[in-house]
Formats: sequence, C-alpha cells, structure tokens
Amino acid sequence: MRLRKKPWTDKELSTNDLLIESPERYKGKWNEFFGNQNPVHLEIGCGKGQFITKMSKLNTDINYIAAEKQIVVMATAMRKARESGALKNLAFIKADAAELEKYFDEGEISRIYINFCDPWHNKKKWAKRRLTNRSFLSIYEKIFGGKGEIFFKTDNKKLFEFSLNEISQKGWIMKNISLDLHKSGFEENVTTEYEDRFSSLGMPIYRLEGYYASKQ
Amino acid sequence: MRLRKKPWTDKELSTNDLLIESPERYKGKWNEFFGNQNPVHLEIGCGKGQFITKMSKLNTDINYIAAEKQIVVMATAMRKARESGALKNLAFIKADAAELEKYFDEGEISRIYINFCDPWHNKKKWAKRRLTNRSFLSIYEKIFGGKGEIFFKTDNKKLFEFSLNEISQKGWIMKNISLDLHKSGFEENVTTEYEDRFSSLGMPIYRLEGYYASKQ
Repeated sequence: MRLRKKPWTDKELSTNDLLIESPERYKGKWNEFFGNQNPVHLEIGCGKGQFITKMSKLNTDINYIAAEKQIVVMATAMRKARESGALKNLAFIKADAAELEKYFDEGEISRIYINFCDPWHNKKKWAKRRLTNRSFLSIYEKIFGGKGEIFFKTDNKKLFEFSLNEISQKGWIMKNISLDLHKSGFEENVTTEYEDRFSSLGMPIYRLEGYYASKQ
Repeated sequence: MRLRKKPWTDKELSTNDLLIESPERYKGKWNEFFGNQNPVHLEIGCGKGQFITKMSKLNTDINYIAAEKQIVVMATAMRKARESGALKNLAFIKADAAELEKYFDEGEISRIYINFCDPWHNKKKWAKRRLTNRSFLSIYEKIFGGKGEIFFKTDNKKLFEFSLNEISQKGWIMKNISLDLHKSGFEENVTTEYEDRFSSLGMPIYRLEGYYASKQ
C-alpha cells in the first residue's frame, strides 16, 4: 500500500472530527461517546476506508470504529468518509491490534472485521503478527466479553488456511466459510478497494465468520 | 469410476478371506475379530484400495477396516491388497455409511478416513448424501463413543468448503487444514489412485482433520 503523504494529509488530520484523539479516554464509554446503546463493530486495518464507510451508511443502527495504525492511510479513509457524507455512527482511531485492550473494555465490541490484512507471507517467525493468530484471538475474546464474532476476508490462500486452523483450535465455531466468495452467491458482501482490484483479475476471495462464546 | 465387472471379480469375491461376510456379526467384537486390542480405523469408500493397503502395511499396530458399497470396486481393492501381501490387520466389508451403526458399537472406531468421496456436486437437495454432512457426523459420533476423528481429503473445492462449515458447526475442532496438500510439506500423506491421477495434473488437493470429543 502506498504510504506517500498527500498534500492534504496534515490538514485532513488536523480538522477531521472523525478522528478520535486519545481513544483510551473512551474505554468503557463508547456507547456514551456514540450517544446510544447500539452495538459497536470494529474494523481492524480500515485501509482507505471504502468498506467501513459503506457499512456505516448501510447500517445506521450499528456504531462503527475504524482502526488503522498507518495515519497517512487513515487520512485517505477519513477524507473518503467525509466526502461521502459520513454519519455520526462512524469514528476513526489510530490503533494497533495488539493494544486493543487499552481502548475497549470487556464486552464493548461485538463484532470485528478484518479485511485483507498483511499475511506476513512465508515468514514462520512472523506468524504471530498475523491478525488471526491465536494470541490476537485471545485479545479479541477479552474485548468481546462473553460473546463476539470476527468477519474475515483475504485473497491470500496460505493466510486463510492458517486462519481456519487457528480459529478452529481456539474452540470458536465458523460459519459461511467461502473459498471463492464472489462466486458463492453471498449477496451482502461489501467490498474494499483492494478486493475490487484483486477480484477484477479473476482471483478468488476467501471469507469466514468466526463465532466466540465463552464456555463459562 | 468404472464399474465393469472384470473376469475375475466373482472368483475374487468368493475366495477372498479379506471380505467379511455379514459384518454385523462382529458388532462389539472387532477387537476379538482382529485378535488384539489395537485401535480400529475405518475407511469409508475404499475405492480401489491403494490407500488402505498401504496404511495397513505402514501401521501394523492399527487394525483397518475398508468399507465400500460397490462390490465390484471392492473386488479390485481386495485383489490389490492380496497381491501386495495383505496383512492380518486389514479387513473389507460391504457397507453403506448410513448404516455404520449396524456394524460398529459405540467406541469401536477411533478414526475414520474419507478420501475423495462423491461431492454430490451442485445438487442442493443431495447435500444430505455428502459424507461430511452433519447427519453423517452424528453417525460417526456414535461409533466413536466419546472421542474420535475423521481425516478427510478431496479435490472438490465446493465439497471442502461445505465440509469445513459442517464440521465446525457440529462443534468439532479441526487441525492440519490444508488448501493445497501436495505443496504443504505434509510428509505422512498416503495417496489414493484418484489422488495420484488428479494431483499429477497440477490440481490442488484439500485435506482436514476433524476431532470430536463429547462434551459430557
């Protein structure tokens, strides 16, 4: 992904009220922040923001938080969100997946979207950086509280295979596993920029839903 | 698969002591039949028998039962087993997967192999005939007793996708899921005739291990 700073990046970041500064302030208070009791869904790695912007418009009864650790990419996402008339159910935070517990209390997030994350391809020692690694799943379990789900998409076969194994062995249940999403007849799919480009080349997209429920 | 009767089929069937007549006689007594307390593994749909013959030679401390509902195919499998010097840890039964409980008591089978079964492709109403359908999984649970596993291979992407969903939603844990077995570095793989042919064309083979453990 290109990280070149655009001329308007700084301005976007300084004036955009979609960006939540010091999001740790809202830990345990996200419903208060959004001003309603609607569920809060999180996208980890929102990239250029097409997915989360569309989702927030489609589902106004859900609050969406878009997390991204690359601030320059997030500036693009926020610009897109603003230009398309972003709604009050959408917020952006600069955050790293490894630190989600800094920002969210147990049970504050009920669904996580992970779309086309870095596969850390062929680097076994980096497997622990993959966002579907079991140690990340443990973090997600904490912010889910007793129950939650991840909706995961990738174009990377090895990463998908890895994720199936990790999620199943964590004792989560999977549903709607698809090995070729765009030929599966799944109609609710909202695409990302990357997905549009990749899929137009005729390459398959993999998708799964992973459901966590505490055994206690 | 060709089902043409070969000239030697009848002779093979009448003289082959690998074929267990009326296998329901041994329900609850398979260890007695094999004359030891070793685990009993079952292959559902042994086809021409390459897989189960090799397995029984490789693992003499496991008892193998090859089930096949097409008697003509089984004759080929038994001929192959006999010619390659079949061992006393291998037996063949003519059986349908839907009727396994007629032949096996709870806990008599600890592992089931399903290799390249009929995908019942694109026929939604026939999904219930797929051997990884949840109703078949329920049958397997019964003959496993409290604990057991299936090792499943296919070249059919849609069947594999279906199987991932069914097995996970049945609450089983999956391990060693592979979306391209022959490039996965999995070295213990014993191939079937079909797999050799299909894989030589460069097509991927899918594989998973599904683990059942009773919640009680």
